[in-house]
Amino acid sequence: MPLSFIQTSKDPNSFARGGILSLGDIEVETPVFMPVGTRGSVKALSSEDILELGYKLILGNTYHLYLKPGKEVMETFGGLKNFMAYPNALLTDSGGFQVFSLSGLFKFEEDGVRFQSHIDGSHHKFTPESVIDMQRAIGSDIMMVLDDCAPYGSSTERLKESLERTHRWAKQSVAYWQNNPNNQNLFCIVQGGVNEALRLESLQTLQNMDFPGIALGGLSVGEPREEYVRILEALSPHLDTKRPRYLMGVGTVVDILDGVKNGIDMFDCVLPTRNARNGQVFTSKGKINLRNESHRLSTEPIDPLCECKVCKTYSLGYLRHLHKVKEILAFTLSTYHNLYFMKQFMDNLRKSIEKGEFQTYYDHWKKLFTP
Amino acid sequence: MPLSFIQTSKDPNSFARGGILSLGDIEVETPVFMPVGTRGSVKALSSEDILELGYKLILGNTYHLYLKPGKEVMETFGGLKNFMAYPNALLTDSGGFQVFSLSGLFKFEEDGVRFQSHIDGSHHKFTPESVIDMQRAIGSDIMMVLDDCAPYGSSTERLKESLERTHRWAKQSVAYWQNNPNNQNLFCIVQGGVNEALRLESLQTLQNMDFPGIALGGLSVGEPREEYVRILEALSPHLDTKRPRYLMGVGTVVDILDGVKNGIDMFDCVLPTRNARNGQVFTSKGKINLRNESHRLSTEPIDPLCECKVCKTYSLGYLRHLHKVKEILAFTLSTYHNLYFMKQFMDNLRKSIEKGEFQTYYDHWKKLFTP
Repeated sequence: MPLSFIQTSKDPNSFARGGILSLGDIEVETPVFMPVGTRGSVKALSSEDILELGYKLILGNTYHLYLKPGKEVMETFGGLKNFMAYPNALLTDSGGFQVFSLSGLFKFEEDGVRFQSHIDGSHHKFTPESVIDMQRAIGSDIMMVLDDCAPYGSSTERLKESLERTHRWAKQSVAYWQNNPNNQNLFCIVQGGVNEALRLESLQTLQNMDFPGIALGGLSVGEPREEYVRILEALSPHLDTKRPRYLMGVGTVVDILDGVKNGIDMFDCVLPTRNARNGQVFTSKGKINLRNESHRLSTEPIDPLCECKVCKTYSLGYLRHLHKVKEILAFTLSTYHNLYFMKQFMDNLRKSIEKGEFQTYYDHWKKLFTP
Repeated sequence: MPLSFIQTSKDPNSFARGGILSLGDIEVETPVFMPVGTRGSVKALSSEDILELGYKLILGNTYHLYLKPGKEVMETFGGLKNFMAYPNALLTDSGGFQVFSLSGLFKFEEDGVRFQSHIDGSHHKFTPESVIDMQRAIGSDIMMVLDDCAPYGSSTERLKESLERTHRWAKQSVAYWQNNPNNQNLFCIVQGGVNEALRLESLQTLQNMDFPGIALGGLSVGEPREEYVRILEALSPHLDTKRPRYLMGVGTVVDILDGVKNGIDMFDCVLPTRNARNGQVFTSKGKINLRNESHRLSTEPIDPLCECKVCKTYSLGYLRHLHKVKEILAFTLSTYHNLYFMKQFMDNLRKSIEKGEFQTYYDHWKKLFTP
């Protein structure tokens, strides 16, 4: 459904804000973290688990879904939500980032990008219009434009080329979307690397177009943390307050804190789920590794303060054993816990803004999760 | 708790029977299929899943639990049931079968068997007493004796050696158990390969000892189906009706049918869970492979007649996709379905005996599941 966004709270000392992002009947409280369901499943969890955890907005990857199961399957099932039996809201990326980062072989053309599948080397082409068509087949509530995300370390010349292409495609994309919006929304993606001037130019250019939301791309792609924060701080005073802002692919607890401080409303990242599968879980005292020998005889839960069903039921000793012998259940339980943690972390972050306690919350968690 | 078994129904034309196996507060209706939780987890499922599926008796593998997480962990947690947060009844094998089939390197001694771990080659020894001690640490309701399971194709001489060792160890085991029964039960294991005379000798010898239950070992270990059925038919008239009978490591739907026909009450096998992970699921029309291209666009469930939550929620098309891209969720959902199927299959098998319709049930399912 066409989205509406209202800002419901604001930290007086930073750009941090709370809001409600409405997508038809589904109301998403922001700041929000979106679990990543790359290939039609948030790895190791079922759609029931996602609903039980309270998530109302998740992410799907267009690149992966385009390759498998493909557009015909998405169309036959009436979209990804029906396919995976998930009834809440869905955001999809455009697939561009995966073309640049996964496929290995890609080549820009005037009207799009050619690439080879990372699975079988087969040849494909994405255009601003074709990725919208694919996202229409997927039926996401929020679609993303095809952009050119230049890697960290790119020359100014390369960044300027990225902006020219990103803005040109954005203009085409918004026109193509508006021609048949079909209850979906389209976000633009701000590029410009770690060059402040180019970032601001990109933001202004894209904010002048009719996108219902603004995303920042090309951050958390390998740059030092200082650069990441510097760019967020450069952009934050200029972000349109009426539209939701989405920081793509972020991130860690610490990166989310700095994102929220700089006015970001939406985040997604594979870290909580990927780290869980590797035995790293998040707690009220910081990160812990479930494989550690020290947990071998521990009858304690991951986090005595956590109310999740994993912490209420299973011990560190059991979870350590499951990880050591690589039982599938290790991945499921650890993922469930980490996504429960992220939900609580974001809910409480939002409350801290409402209560005027954001800075305290920021300091507390930043200290705990800074390596 | 000390077990009690009562036979509650009997097929007039075969040895098939229904019963109730009581282990303290836990009443297990027989014939029963036990899911296998080799290393403290029924692969891909949580203990909540097992309870939700209605299983009241599962199996753990002593060999695997002895190697990882080890006896000290079992003792610290007060047994496997606490460790894995599973409150119902538990049966453990003795570990002998895995020593012979997995470890590769083993050597009999007068008082036990030396072997090397299949994980790291480390040296270990099992004796009739030490495997009971380990099963005491695991805290299973039903323990199994250490036996000598000669492989299929063994000479008569080797089978006789197996019987001598198996019976000698059984005698030691029952004495060692009775010295401190501690609310646990111990079953003997009948050996003798596919030699009817030796099988009968083994059965008579062991039934003369004070075991609360009788297991048949060394079947479904590679022998032709005719041999399997022939041995069951030779033994069935001689099985003690007062004690529960357990056919170890069996099996397929068809093998279970022939087991029940010949008076078996208890079964365990990894097939329903292992096949599920490989995409093979059981339905009211027989087996199907979820990876088949034919399911790509199917919005139908695995089995329209199945009431399980997987069939109520997910389509063949989705499950096929999950299996093709090897998502963890594929393993979880398929395993859940197959164990739901097995529970229904056994419940209805029991009812068919009560209603005097066993032969019809037998014929129906045998036809569907015979390759």
